[in-house]
Amino acid sequence: MRVISKFLLSAVTALAVTGPAVADVEKTIEHRQSLYQVIAWNFGPLRGMAQGKIDFDADEAELRATRIAQISLMLDEVYTDSDTASGSDAKDEIWENWDDFEMKLANFKTEAATLATVAATGDADATKAQFGKMAGTCKACHDDYKD
Amino acid sequence: MRVISKFLLSAVTALAVTGPAVADVEKTIEHRQSLYQVIAWNFGPLRGMAQGKIDFDADEAELRATRIAQISLMLDEVYTDSDTASGSDAKDEIWENWDDFEMKLANFKTEAATLATVAATGDADATKAQFGKMAGTCKACHDDYKD
Repeated sequence: MRVISKFLLSAVTALAVTGPAVADVEKTIEHRQSLYQVIAWNFGPLRGMAQGKIDFDADEAELRATRIAQISLMLDEVYTDSDTASGSDAKDEIWENWDDFEMKLANFKTEAATLATVAATGDADATKAQFGKMAGTCKACHDDYKD
Repeated sequence: MRVISKFLLSAVTALAVTGPAVADVEKTIEHRQSLYQVIAWNFGPLRGMAQGKIDFDADEAELRATRIAQISLMLDEVYTDSDTASGSDAKDEIWENWDDFEMKLANFKTEAATLATVAATGDADATKAQFGKMAGTCKACHDDYKD
């Protein structure tokens, strides 16, 4: 599924304007890793709630889900084909199977956006279920494309 | 000026629930540095436009400003007093002058939010002027509180 939104289209424009030259590949990787770090930071409390290790807190869940959804939209510009064999955890298979990778990334964005919407309702069970669905899109990509 | 919003209040709750123990200070610093890295990444194109080194692009400016505003709200939970003398670029003076630091951080959030609003109008001159105002709040904090 492709997610078409103003922000995504803007991100494509942004890439054309400010996309990194080869010399900037390290900066791009650093940026990518920062984004995933921020996702992981916010993922933690949601996972804790989903696993019952932390009491469900609707405000907290909404906050974390919203932040993950915001960050997910920032991932468009952080994979460039000049990044192959960079020594990062990103496998070359990303660029060899770009359409599949792009679809999996789009799936993550879709499920993250849905999680933010569901979490905003305050429904604990629905939020936990949607968290699982979103987490599945993380795993689907990591299984194939992350060392 | 204090910025009170649902997100900020939620962030306070989040800190109470998931705030790092001393053992997690390194993770908090890593998270903080990731957030500032993402800000810097998006700051660059705006600065380029403000300085006339890049042609003004309204969509690009709005995108970058929105992302900085989103990230600015994530900074609430990344300064903890267990972080003093951590060896990061954050000076101990942050915690010694907490009220002043908190005010300067709030100023950044306010000006970043305003920049996102102004950039959405597509007005190049107003966007550049507001970018300068926001950049001033970065400098104000860095002058006193960053090595």
